Amino acid sequence: MIIIKVGGGKTINWDFIAEDVVYLQKKERVIIVHGASQTRDEIAKKLKTPTKIITSPTGISSVYTDKNAIDVFLMIYPGLVNKKIVAKLQSYGINAVGLSGIDGLLWTGKRKKAVYSKEGNKIKLITNNMTGKVDKVNINLINLLLENKYIPVISPPAMDEEKQIINTDNDWATAVMAGALKIKSMVVLFEAPGLLREFGDESSLVKTVDKNKLDQDMSFAQGRMKKKILGAKEAFRLGLKTMYWSDGRIKHPIIEAINGRGTIIS
Amino acid sequence: MIIIKVGGGKTINWDFIAEDVVYLQKKERVIIVHGASQTRDEIAKKLKTPTKIITSPTGISSVYTDKNAIDVFLMIYPGLVNKKIVAKLQSYGINAVGLSGIDGLLWTGKRKKAVYSKEGNKIKLITNNMTGKVDKVNINLINLLLENKYIPVISPPAMDEEKQIINTDNDWATAVMAGALKIKSMVVLFEAPGLLREFGDESSLVKTVDKNKLDQDMSFAQGRMKKKILGAKEAFRLGLKTMYWSDGRIKHPIIEAINGRGTIIS
Repeated sequence: MIIIKVGGGKTINWDFIAEDVVYLQKKERVIIVHGASQTRDEIAKKLKTPTKIITSPTGISSVYTDKNAIDVFLMIYPGLVNKKIVAKLQSYGINAVGLSGIDGLLWTGKRKKAVYSKEGNKIKLITNNMTGKVDKVNINLINLLLENKYIPVISPPAMDEEKQIINTDNDWATAVMAGALKIKSMVVLFEAPGLLREFGDESSLVKTVDKNKLDQDMSFAQGRMKKKILGAKEAFRLGLKTMYWSDGRIKHPIIEAINGRGTIIS
Repeated sequence: MIIIKVGGGKTINWDFIAEDVVYLQKKERVIIVHGASQTRDEIAKKLKTPTKIITSPTGISSVYTDKNAIDVFLMIYPGLVNKKIVAKLQSYGINAVGLSGIDGLLWTGKRKKAVYSKEGNKIKLITNNMTGKVDKVNINLINLLLENKYIPVISPPAMDEEKQIINTDNDWATAVMAGALKIKSMVVLFEAPGLLREFGDESSLVKTVDKNKLDQDMSFAQGRMKKKILGAKEAFRLGLKTMYWSDGRIKHPIIEAINGRGTIIS
């Protein structure tokens, strides 16, 4: 069983991904998790409720998600983007079923009732942020679909313990899901050739990273990449053996990733 | 097994529906189908692509659905509205799983490649309308969920034979699904006490209709109600025994419907 986690950038090529999944699903069970951040940001702007980013005192940035932002989130992640991906995969004969973390309580966790945000030199307390970390996965629903030849195509949001909808970090949730399903390999596709030592410089690709030295080896990571590293650490802590970070824009993105074209963390 | 089909009006009370489903699911398997037209129209307007209605030469009105309208449709039906309903049901302990007609090819049909629209005295041919009638249902996916104690919460769109996303009449699709699942009873909830002889006059409620006389008894129906009648006829043709049309705004909407508070067609 393998998880393919795909970023929410618009230059990701889902035809290429679908072609690889057609091949891959003959050999093993495949679960797809995706983001939708770029489309979300575009529609949020059109709806005049632009996405707001907050940065924690330790420098981790995340989306500030009030109830309006949850509405836009629901429109785009399990709505527009998930269904377009499912339709695309179906057009390749892949029997995809889209699920959000809400469906069948697939992803649940605790809402962070207090979040600190650094604004210039000030630190602000935010209490209405509808975000949280996934700590529990309904693996029965996933296994039910897989056993019956359906390919789950999963996106956030998740639910908290009070049955409220919460935005959640996708890399972390995917890590927890991989752990719950005892998955050994995960392919992470985004709009870059892999982990880059210099942001934007494709020649600075890091080919291999020791999973036990993620913090040291990735001390240069910035912004959202920091969250990917937190997710990766959690996935390895829960039993993952190999993670492939690679390019979601190229032909054969999954096969190339597994063949080591991007970054291998193990 | 029973289907609860709920309209897309914003005064529908999903708390009341959830309370009845908690009770109902102890006795039989429940499938929910919902619309989202009012929210779709609101968001379409905000996105500056307002919903366009076309009327066929025979007087049946429907939504003109180009590719932009499909995008808004995906945002609202399987996105915002489906997930809010699923979350609401989950908050009542109902293990709901949201599905669109795309997921697992749940609802498939033929796209109408040519549609005629009456505009004043002119009749116009439209060829880019992404709509069609559902003629096939993946009952395996529904049964798989039901057998494992999940409640499917289903919304359009559907897929055509070329694996394109199509808008589809919800009443017709629900009828075809009921037939495929050999369902005998269907509750249809909307924002009126039942079938009204005079539009808007709640005292003109029709208490019973003979399923074999739908055309005669409902000759007074107008606009969207005509499509509900087409859906009802198809459902009965495929084996349905009783259909309850009733109020989705009142306490115990499902129980009241079955007790005959609205219109019983049988």
